[in-house]
Parts: sequence; structure tokens; C-alpha cells
Amino acid sequence: MSPKVVLAYSGGLDTSVAIAWLSERGWDVVAVAVDVGQPGDLNSAVARAESLGAVEARLVQARHEFVEDYVLPALKMNALYQGRYPLVSALSRPLISKVLVDVANDVDAAAVAHGCTGKGNDQVRFEVSLGALAPDLDVLAPVRDWGMNRAETIAFAAARSLPIETTKSSPYSIDENAWGRSIECGVLEDPWVAPPDDVFALTAAPQDAPEPRDVVVSFDGGVPVAVDGETLAPANAIDAVGKLAGSYGIGRIDMVEDRLVGIKSREVYECPAGIALIAAHQDLEGITLDRDLAKEKRRLSSLWSEVVYDGLWFSPLRDAIDAFAATSQARVTGDVKLRLSAGGCLPVGRRSPYSLYSETLATYDDGDTFAHEDAAGFTRLWGLPAKTWARGS
Amino acid sequence: MSPKVVLAYSGGLDTSVAIAWLSERGWDVVAVAVDVGQPGDLNSAVARAESLGAVEARLVQARHEFVEDYVLPALKMNALYQGRYPLVSALSRPLISKVLVDVANDVDAAAVAHGCTGKGNDQVRFEVSLGALAPDLDVLAPVRDWGMNRAETIAFAAARSLPIETTKSSPYSIDENAWGRSIECGVLEDPWVAPPDDVFALTAAPQDAPEPRDVVVSFDGGVPVAVDGETLAPANAIDAVGKLAGSYGIGRIDMVEDRLVGIKSREVYECPAGIALIAAHQDLEGITLDRDLAKEKRRLSSLWSEVVYDGLWFSPLRDAIDAFAATSQARVTGDVKLRLSAGGCLPVGRRSPYSLYSETLATYDDGDTFAHEDAAGFTRLWGLPAKTWARGS
Amino acid sequence: MSPKVVLAYSGGLDTSVAIAWLSERGWDVVAVAVDVGQPGDLNSAVARAESLGAVEARLVQARHEFVEDYVLPALKMNALYQGRYPLVSALSRPLISKVLVDVANDVDAAAVAHGCTGKGNDQVRFEVSLGALAPDLDVLAPVRDWGMNRAETIAFAAARSLPIETTKSSPYSIDENAWGRSIECGVLEDPWVAPPDDVFALTAAPQDAPEPRDVVVSFDGGVPVAVDGETLAPANAIDAVGKLAGSYGIGRIDMVEDRLVGIKSREVYECPAGIALIAAHQDLEGITLDRDLAKEKRRLSSLWSEVVYDGLWFSPLRDAIDAFAATSQARVTGDVKLRLSAGGCLPVGRRSPYSLYSETLATYDDGDTFAHEDAAGFTRLWGLPAKTWARGS
Amino acid sequence: MSPKVVLAYSGGLDTSVAIAWLSERGWDVVAVAVDVGQPGDLNSAVARAESLGAVEARLVQARHEFVEDYVLPALKMNALYQGRYPLVSALSRPLISKVLVDVANDVDAAAVAHGCTGKGNDQVRFEVSLGALAPDLDVLAPVRDWGMNRAETIAFAAARSLPIETTKSSPYSIDENAWGRSIECGVLEDPWVAPPDDVFALTAAPQDAPEPRDVVVSFDGGVPVAVDGETLAPANAIDAVGKLAGSYGIGRIDMVEDRLVGIKSREVYECPAGIALIAAHQDLEGITLDRDLAKEKRRLSSLWSEVVYDGLWFSPLRDAIDAFAATSQARVTGDVKLRLSAGGCLPVGRRSPYSLYSETLATYDDGDTFAHEDAAGFTRLWGLPAKTWARGS
Repeated sequence: MSPKVVLAYSGGLDTSVAIAWLSERGWDVVAVAVDVGQPGDLNSAVARAESLGAVEARLVQARHEFVEDYVLPALKMNALYQGRYPLVSALSRPLISKVLVDVANDVDAAAVAHGCTGKGNDQVRFEVSLGALAPDLDVLAPVRDWGMNRAETIAFAAARSLPIETTKSSPYSIDENAWGRSIECGVLEDPWVAPPDDVFALTAAPQDAPEPRDVVVSFDGGVPVAVDGETLAPANAIDAVGKLAGSYGIGRIDMVEDRLVGIKSREVYECPAGIALIAAHQDLEGITLDRDLAKEKRRLSSLWSEVVYDGLWFSPLRDAIDAFAATSQARVTGDVKLRLSAGGCLPVGRRSPYSLYSETLATYDDGDTFAHEDAAGFTRLWGLPAKTWARGS
Repeated sequence: MSPKVVLAYSGGLDTSVAIAWLSERGWDVVAVAVDVGQPGDLNSAVARAESLGAVEARLVQARHEFVEDYVLPALKMNALYQGRYPLVSALSRPLISKVLVDVANDVDAAAVAHGCTGKGNDQVRFEVSLGALAPDLDVLAPVRDWGMNRAETIAFAAARSLPIETTKSSPYSIDENAWGRSIECGVLEDPWVAPPDDVFALTAAPQDAPEPRDVVVSFDGGVPVAVDGETLAPANAIDAVGKLAGSYGIGRIDMVEDRLVGIKSREVYECPAGIALIAAHQDLEGITLDRDLAKEKRRLSSLWSEVVYDGLWFSPLRDAIDAFAATSQARVTGDVKLRLSAGGCLPVGRRSPYSLYSETLATYDDGDTFAHEDAAGFTRLWGLPAKTWARGS
Repeated sequence: MSPKVVLAYSGGLDTSVAIAWLSERGWDVVAVAVDVGQPGDLNSAVARAESLGAVEARLVQARHEFVEDYVLPALKMNALYQGRYPLVSALSRPLISKVLVDVANDVDAAAVAHGCTGKGNDQVRFEVSLGALAPDLDVLAPVRDWGMNRAETIAFAAARSLPIETTKSSPYSIDENAWGRSIECGVLEDPWVAPPDDVFALTAAPQDAPEPRDVVVSFDGGVPVAVDGETLAPANAIDAVGKLAGSYGIGRIDMVEDRLVGIKSREVYECPAGIALIAAHQDLEGITLDRDLAKEKRRLSSLWSEVVYDGLWFSPLRDAIDAFAATSQARVTGDVKLRLSAGGCLPVGRRSPYSLYSETLATYDDGDTFAHEDAAGFTRLWGLPAKTWARGS
Repeated sequence: MSPKVVLAYSGGLDTSVAIAWLSERGWDVVAVAVDVGQPGDLNSAVARAESLGAVEARLVQARHEFVEDYVLPALKMNALYQGRYPLVSALSRPLISKVLVDVANDVDAAAVAHGCTGKGNDQVRFEVSLGALAPDLDVLAPVRDWGMNRAETIAFAAARSLPIETTKSSPYSIDENAWGRSIECGVLEDPWVAPPDDVFALTAAPQDAPEPRDVVVSFDGGVPVAVDGETLAPANAIDAVGKLAGSYGIGRIDMVEDRLVGIKSREVYECPAGIALIAAHQDLEGITLDRDLAKEKRRLSSLWSEVVYDGLWFSPLRDAIDAFAATSQARVTGDVKLRLSAGGCLPVGRRSPYSLYSETLATYDDGDTFAHEDAAGFTRLWGLPAKTWARGS
């Protein structure tokens, strides 16, 4: 009997060929497609896997788990890698790893495999996650090992008459899930060239945006629970906000980012839900979080984003930051009014039962309860070190 | 002979009345208006000061110095307080303080005075700056001390027939300079109420924006030096970008922020130049700064913003961070293409003679020079602690 | 009936006089002494309070609560303000505040009072804690208000024949609890003068130390639970380590520190238990905590120390950091061998059931399981940004 | 003609064998010994190199440069990796790399080589430094590649009758320079075993320490310039303090540290000069640095230490932090009195012409100039957020 390997299978060229490639090397391949909210017909991809040589193929529905356990923690942290990227793919890799390990245990596999190349971040995310979840399980990376370029890979498939979908050959490398979509390669490899309109699928061009409008997003303990007053499950609230924001072209990101493996890459993302919800969530925190807590949370937000980007989802550091975050979200409850325009998303109103904003403290009108005379003493002591420093020179 | 006090004079109600109020208390008031790029007729304000009771009135042109010594350092740091506010007023207060001290030395004054209330940040910025620049000079805060509300202040002026401009009575409290404009009070004190259109002066409503277009901003050592290929002095580049971005409604900010004096306040800003230039500058750093340097600079950016917001411009900490920043900017030279739409400002291209992006390292095409086999070893060592942790449990 | 005020009463000069002073101003004073592990006869101090004018006096035993809820969290964070001071007084003030509020609720008091002056940290710690626990309760600060110096205070007492203990008049201001002891004033106000031997009570002079010896401290989840193999309650383990370390002169601290109120002060502390236990605890973390987690915990340790030093014990930020810390301590279980010498405390051995140290990974001998060939690839990718930077110049 | 390789040669077993090993593989080996203050007879080691097969051997005197350009920056930053290790070897590797590149340019070499194994930090420090200084120069790592253990290496040398010094075979792996000494391997690989006395060379056992005494160290701009009043060049001041502190057994460090390559290792160090001078320098900063500046410098100190430990000496981030540090040191001038005892090193006095300590502000005696009444207002505003938070619940 051949040893079994559980392969993360997307239905695309590389992982399709990987089934055949691994089979030829003596593995019984169990192909696993994981639904994390991406588009496309995963069922037919799974159906195709056996004719590619898999001994078994499974479709695992994980969209709900993805939103609850991976996307919502990112939203609670307002997670943006390098201040800009909402961690789309970085969030799904640990979950897919977890599914692989579960299936490997189930079928008593000797190894798991992923279809990542050697220069991206995803190989790291898979392998570190797998190492943390199953330190003694072997991990194969056929695409990193085989050394074929795209043309050679297609030739490999053709030579074996593998049933690969090649009709809509895209020059781009795309990854998508319920939190957004990333686009790489092709003309985008020149960072001076603006992304052509056809790379976008979730966001309209700004010139096609409808008239500006407001939308109210409601949160409970940091979790989005309603849109314009309609109560929704978090996954549905994310979808609803994403569709609306996307129609305004909100959520496009175009950046040169630093990969963990030491290179800079040009990345284009579209995350209409992510960008709009983070803007709203952050704004609500402005009125419900204590200043010092919010300041430290912003600092930890950068760290959390780096940890997750760098593949360390299953790490005691993320656990500890999430414990900090959980404590911080208890009062992040209330409504935020977002004004949507072509490419713009501006909070223009916010309210909360736990609001720390006090109109009687803040007003310059009658009804002011702030003790102005305290300010003179405060200011003198606040400035005392600067004054002492000035005298010391 | 009466002792002299040098008053920071804006021509508005409070500082106009302050001239009379201080004069009545035995001071010879030297009124100083400082041009930091705000609109309005400062010359006639200065002309009016003597009829308000000033023994002398001066207009100090400081717009150039403001941009060079206060705005450009903020841009180099991508300074945004609490991630959002580009520090408009916080940047001008230390410069105005410096002017006050210079004039005080010139006229041999016994004190300086500002027109701030007791609950804002500006009292702190003035007093700490003044304490650092002239630790032995007395500082008066008539508006904080006199305890009159707005109606009483107007009555005070009327009773003395002071020549106050009261025709265009605005419910808002406004401050403006070459970097932007802040709007407070009135209906804005309810953080749920969206800002009415009439509070904005530098930014068009998104619905009035023209068709999307691109603009190219060029930087040299972190400083903006050209717009769409036309070489400009930094102050003029800032103006040009501000006008263009403003016509798209870019740069509006609406937030509840934490003041140093312990309260939350709702603030509305419009900083079209600031928001567009920081987006461009940050994007150029993405391609010209080393990952670790950029990461630490982001962290220091928050700190710099807090230090300046909190009035500590003249402090050894800001000096030291600026030394860090100066070192970081040597290679921040190149062009950024910004796509402007109604309320949106998206970098869509960037290039630099110092670009650290290497297409031969990043490409997935032929010509790839990245050593894929190194990645396997890298990933194993990177994941070793997570694996060791997993085994330890 | 007079309104009641609950006074934090230590039995010393200032709070003794405060009883009389407040009584003369129409208050019914309820004097509360809180046992947080300080020496001295609190019972007779309490007995004396009524003859000073108190309507009621209570002794609250809080030593156990102090260690469990205030000292152990500090130890778990390895808390050292400015890298040196283990936060002795800063830890007891929030607990005393909590006791005051409890008593105030119990006796239906209109106010609480503390005996701090206007230039120390403790006034802030009391008032912020009280404001957080009972925002609507009035707080009195008689010593800050009365404007008497020491001589005048003694004269005030003498004029009223108050039963004040003045026999052993010390030139120093001392505070002590179960975690250590602080000494201020007198000749110590000259920071160049070395502390005279007679300021120390918990630590022997180094020249009087016995021969070097080792002691083994055992921790369970970050909490000290045994000394040299003898199982002890945490409070007793702290005592035992403190006595032993003190006999070697370990735990003396002499520093110029920055107070919150903007001044530098020279402080002398002796914290034999704190210094020895933090050294041991930190060392055990070296073998049981993941690198990245430990790094972030060190950073949060500084922040936690500042938050607590600055009086913000009862704040959402401390709560959130403590949630982080709690998560981090699960595996901080094991033994540390400390070598004690005259003034020196050096960990020389550590072991843990959760040790992350792997001799087979670390050894240079036979049995090495580390994959040396991975290091070449790792090193190349790790150095790739530096190389790219070098090429870009 | 054979290609040339410039080898970092220490005279020890591994780099001696490396000469022969590289020669056998067709390289002309130029052996370079770099004097960074280590003990031993480098001249005779260099003399021996040619009989090992080197075509040329050089001794480069770099002790002065090492202290000025590598040790003093570390002292200015109070650099301690993971809060404990003063970065002994981590400081010399970049300098040795620089020497290698200089020699390689001089002799027109095709490659450079180091003698590090695959699991230490030094391979990374060499290779990253070399990549930054000469990105196009090849780097060889014979010891990492050859796969011989110690016995096999000795056999390799014996088979060729190489003139290796094997008389004093130590079970320990040792590295030493002007800043300290590190000891690894042998029984130390068990982290529970206390280091035997014979591993130490720079520090006396605590039981052999003389009577406690004080020593005064003087700094100018952060640099040590005198000891007990005698003016010394920095390198000599470091030596003098090191000898004195070493005689008290001060400067021993025993820890489990995290290597960059993902493993924990048990390390023993002795850095009498480093530990004593950092204690003194830090204490002087306590009286001469502004609170906020000192706080941020402590944070950057950790980062600097990690950057240097991780081999990134030649990086724009270190440059930028050093610019911060340079600004910070201008006033770090003055004297610190250290009390030395057996294993203990305690600052007991400090003074500076730039002292920010003001006795008139700090005193509780007559002559107090602190405005106590300011404290009430300060405290109320400082505590306002905590009170607002409490009310919001």
C-alpha cells in the first residue's frame, strides 16, 4: 500500500498538476478543497480531482469557521499589514492547514502537501502552521521542488492529458476569500504601471460609482451585527458591507510590500468589506476605548498583523495578544455612520451606550462642567520637564 | 511705565477682547499676528489692534518657516495623531511661541500671552513651548482666566465699543494654516451628527468632484519638489496638491479624538494636501525603505505625533526622533502616481532611482533570480520555535 | 450630624495630625489603617486614633490580598519602573484606596482622605484609584492643602497635646510593605551622597554577608511556590526569599527616578525579595517562553510598570495587559537555582517540565539533530534585504 | 593561478583545518587574524598559518577601532540582548567582516570565508555583514559544509600533520574580545548545571572578592573618560573598570538565550567592564536625560540589541537608531560612584553639570519651590479618563 499525502487542492493549474506529480512519485493523494468564501465551482473541481489521479477528494465547508475564528479577530485588531493590507490570504492559510491536519489524522496520512512556490509568504504560513499543529507530520512542497515554470507545467499536464481548465487563462495570480482578494503578476510586476481595470472583481471603478450615500454599521463587542438597522450574522454583515462598499470602488489597495522571505513585491488587493469595516470599527473605538488602551492596542495591531502575515498564527504570542484584544472589546458596541463616495469611505457619525465622550465636558457652550482652573496646574506640571531641560543647557 | 506683554493675536473675538482686557489690567499690549498660511486679511486685523488698545501691533510673515521647519518634518514622519489627524494646529503653536519669544526679547517684555481656553490642547502647546524657549518669562492666559462665555465676551466688547468684526458670526471655532483646517463646536459637538456641508472650505463635497484623474508627485529626500513634472518649492507643491485634492473632496477627517487634558472631543478637519502627500510619501517609502527601518519608523511616527500633539515640540525627544527621521529620508526620492476620485486618493504607481524592488527577484516569470531552494531551509528554521512550542505542551 | 470622611491612617505624624485638622473643620473622621505587611504596631496606632479625634478607627488586614492581587501580578510582569524600581508603594496605594471606598460605603461617608503631599506620586495613585472606584466620592488631601512644613506640623500637634510618637524622629521618609521598603529625604536629597548604612532595615551591608550559597526557587504558573524544596504559600515564599537575599545585601536600589509630576527625585529602595524573585522568574521565562512572546512581554513589562507607577492601576489598559500576562504564564513552571553573594544574585541553573531548550538541537556534540544545511538558506534570505540595500546605494 | 579566498583565521582548530581544507579544494588561502582585544599569541598563530597551507597570513590590529566604533555605540545604547547579554561576539563579527572585505579588495580575492558552524549566530553575522559590505563577493563556510565533528576534524589534521595546538584541549568553546568573553559547550549544555569555576577567566569567584569599595567613573558625552579621577582613553577606561570589577566577580551572566536560528542555547558570559559601565552609564542618564527621551531610548535599546545580535550591524535601521542615540548623549556627562562588592555593582552617587535633578524642586524641606497647588489640578485631569471610564460602565 502506498503512503498517503493530503494535498491542499484549489482546482487551479499548480495543485492539479501536483496531484499527478505526487501520484507518479508513489503517493496516494487525498485532495482537499477548502471553501473559505472564494468564488468558483469547488464541487466540479473536486469531481475532477480523481481523474487527475487522486485516490480521494473532499470539499470542506469552512466559510463560517473562517469568518468567526480568523476574520473577526483580524477586524477586532483593525489588522493592516504595514498599515495597509488587511491580511486576506494570511488569514486563510492557518485554517486550511488545520483542515489538512484533521484530514491527515482521519485518513492516517504520512504527509501533507501544499502548492506554494519558494518565494511567496504562503509556503511559510502553511509550513509553520502545520509544524505547530502536527510537529511530526511530513510536509511536501511539490511546486517549490519541481522547478517547472508555467509553460513547462502546462506541457506536463498536456503530455498526460490531465483535465485542466485552461480556457480562461489569466496572466494574474489570484487568491480570494470572504475577506477580500489579492492580485499579483503580469503587468503588475512593474510597480509604476497602474493596475488595469480588468484585474478588479469586487470593486467598481470609481467613475462608475453611484451617488454618495450613508450606511450605518452596528457593532456588538467589536463584532459587526447589523447594517442600516438590519440584524445580520457577522458573515452576512461582512458580505453586505463588502457589496455596498465595492460598488463605490472602496477597498482597492496598491502597494509594494515586504515579504517575509526578504523581497519586496507589488501587490494589488481589493477588500471592500475589510477597509470599510475597519474604518467603522476603529472609529467606534475612538468613542468607546480609553486613550491609553487605544494607543497600546494600535501598537499591538501592527505586531499582530506582522505575526499573522509572517505565518505565526498558531503561536503563543498571537494567543496572548488576542487575550489583550478580547479584554479591550467589551464596550466596543454602537453604531457608526459611514459616508460612501467614489473611492472614499468616511465615518461621519458614531454613538454608543458606552460612549466616553461627554458633551458637558467637551462643550464650549453653557453647561460646561470641565474645571478650567485645573488646566493651569496641569499645564505647568506637564511642561516642567521641558522647562527644566531648557534651564539645564 | 507699564510692563509689556506680547500677545498672540489672531484678529478674532477672543484675542481682540484680550487686548482690551489686558490693557485695563495695566499691561502695555504688543499684539503679534503670525502668518502661517491662514486666509483672511491679517493686515487690517493688525491695523485694528491699536484701536483695541494695543501699544504696538506687528504682522510676522512666517509661512515659509512654517512649511520648512514644521510641516516638512511632519510629512517626513507621515505624522497622523491617533492614525488620523495630520496635526494642523499642533504644528503652528510652537512656531507662534517662538515668534512671541523673539518679539518679547525685542521689546523687552515682562510676559507673553495667548488666547486659549482651559480645555483645549493649544494652551498646553503654547505654555510648554514658551517654557522651553524662555523658562523665565511669565505667561498669561486671559481667556482661560476671565471666565466669560461667548455672549459675555461680546457684551464686554460692545460695552467698550471695541471694533470687533461680528458680521459673519460663525457657530464654529476654526483654525487654519498652510497644512490644513480644523473645525469645532456648534452642531459638531454631537458626534452622531454628520458635519454639514458648510463647515468645509478647502474640500468640495464628493458629489461635486470632477472625473477621476492621476497626478504625479515627486519627492527628493522625502520633500515634495514637483507636481506632474513641474518643479515647485515645497510650499508651492503643498498648495498645488492641496487645491487639486481638495477639488475631489479628499482630506476630510471626522473623528472623536483624545485631548491631552483627559477628555474626548469631536473634531472635523480638512487637510487635502496633508492626506494626499502623506499617502504618496508613505507609498514611496514602501519602495525605498528597508523593511525593518520602515517598521520602526512607523512606530516612531505614532510617538512623534503624540509628542507634537501633546505640546512637546521643543523637547529632546522630538530632536532625537528627527535625527532618526533625517537618516531615514536620504533615499526617499522618486515619483508617486496618485489616482484621485471623489473622496479617494490611491497610489497606483511608484518609481525611484533607489528602488529596492527588484523585478528579477520578485517575478514569477522567466528571469527569476530568487533561490527557491533557500526558502525550504529558511522556512524550517523560521518555524522551529513554533514546532518546539507545540512539542513542549 | 457631621459628614463623615474616611482617612487612610498610618499612625505617623501627618495622618495623625490630619485627624485633628479634619475634625476641627467639621468632619467626623473614620481612621483606617491597612496592614499590607509593613512593620510596627498598627494596633496601638489604631488605639491612639480616637484620642486624636477620630470618631472611629479600624485596622484592616490586607496582607494576603496585597500579595495575591498586587504583588504577584507585578512579579509575573517582572515589573521594574525605569528598569530598576520594583514598585513597592505604587502597588499598595490602589489596594488602600479600595479599602477606603469599602469603608466609605460601609459607614456612608461623604468623602475619603489621604495624607500625601503635592509633589509625590502617591497623591496621584490615591486620587486616580479613588476616582476609578467611586467617581462621585469627594477626595480630601489635607496635607497638600494645609501648607505646614514639618516643624509647623509638630507645633500644631504640640499645641493640641496630640498623642504623637515623636521619640524616634527619623530624618527619612519611609514606606514599607510585603514587597519592600522605600527611603527618601534627609541627606539622600543630595544624589551624590551615598546612602548611610542606617537607612537600611531589610538588607545587610555587603561586608556583613555570609559565604556565598545557592537557593532553589520553584514556580508554578509564574507564582513562587517553594524554596529549597519546601512548599510555601506565595506570601511565605516571598518572605523566605526576602530574608535570605536580605542577609546578603541583595535588593538595594539607589536611583534618580522621574516622578509623574514632572520632577526627578533621588530614591533609595530595598527589595530583597523582589530583586531575587524577579531575577529567578525572568530566568525561568528564558527557558519556558517562546522568543517572540518573551520579547513582547518585556516591552509590555515597561508599560505595565509605568501604568502602575503613574497611578493607573484601575484602568482598562492594566486589565488588558494582565490578560496578556495571564496567557503567557501557563508554562512558567519549574526551578531556578540562584547563587547568592554579597550584593549579587545570579541564576546558575534552571529546569522545567515545559522547557523549550532542547539539548539535541543545541549540542555541538554527537546527537546533534539540527539541520545545518537549512542555515545556509536561512542566512541568505535573512541577509537579502541588507544586500539589496547595499546594491541600491 | 588559483582563485584567492580571504579566511577569518583565529588560530584555533576549526580555522586552522579550514586553511588546509580550502587549499585542497583549489583555493589560495589568505589567512587574516584580527586583534579585537582577545588574549593569546596572535603573532605565532599567524606565523603558523603558512605551514597550514596559507599563501599569505596577516595580523590586523583593530582593537582601537573595535572599541571606538563598536563597543562605545553599544555602551551608549546600554545594549543588553534580552535584557542581559552585552553583545560581546555580536560586536566583533561586523568589524572582522569589514577587515575581510578590505583584505579581499587588497589581494583581489574571489571569495571570503569564515569558520562558523550552521547552528550559531556568528555565521549569520558574518554573512549578512559581508553581503552588505560586498554584495557580489562569494562567501564560503567550510566548517558548516564539511560535516566533520570535532574528533574527525582532529583526525583530519593529524592525517596531514598540521601544526595544530592541541595541548590545552578545552571542552568549552570560547570567544573573547575587549568587551568580554563567552563560554559554551561541555557541561554547560545542561542548563541546570551551575558553571564550574574553571570556565571563568576575567572574573574572580565571589568568595575571593576583596572588601567592598567605591570607584568613580566619569563620562563625557556618554563615553567613559576617567576612573577615580584619572583621565584615560576609552579603551583604557574599559580595561581599568573591567579589571577592577572582575576582581569582585562582577559581570558573570548565565542564561538560556534565543538564537536567531530558532533554538534556545545556554550561554555563560563574563563582561565585568560591560556590566559595570552600563550600570554607571544608565545611572548617569537617570540624572541627565529627560524622562520621555530616556523611556524611548530604553525601548530602542532593546531593538538595537536585537538588530546587532541578529547580524544586522550594517543596516539602515542601526544607522538611524545611532542617529537617535547620538542626539541623546550630548549631556550625558558627569560622574557616577559605583559600590563594588562580591558579585554586586551598585551606583550610590551621581553628579553632572547638566543634572536635571533640582534639589529645590525635590526637597521636602524649607526651600521647596514646587507649586503644590498645581498638583491638585494636574491630578484631577490625569485621573479624568479613569473616572470617565468608571462612569461609563
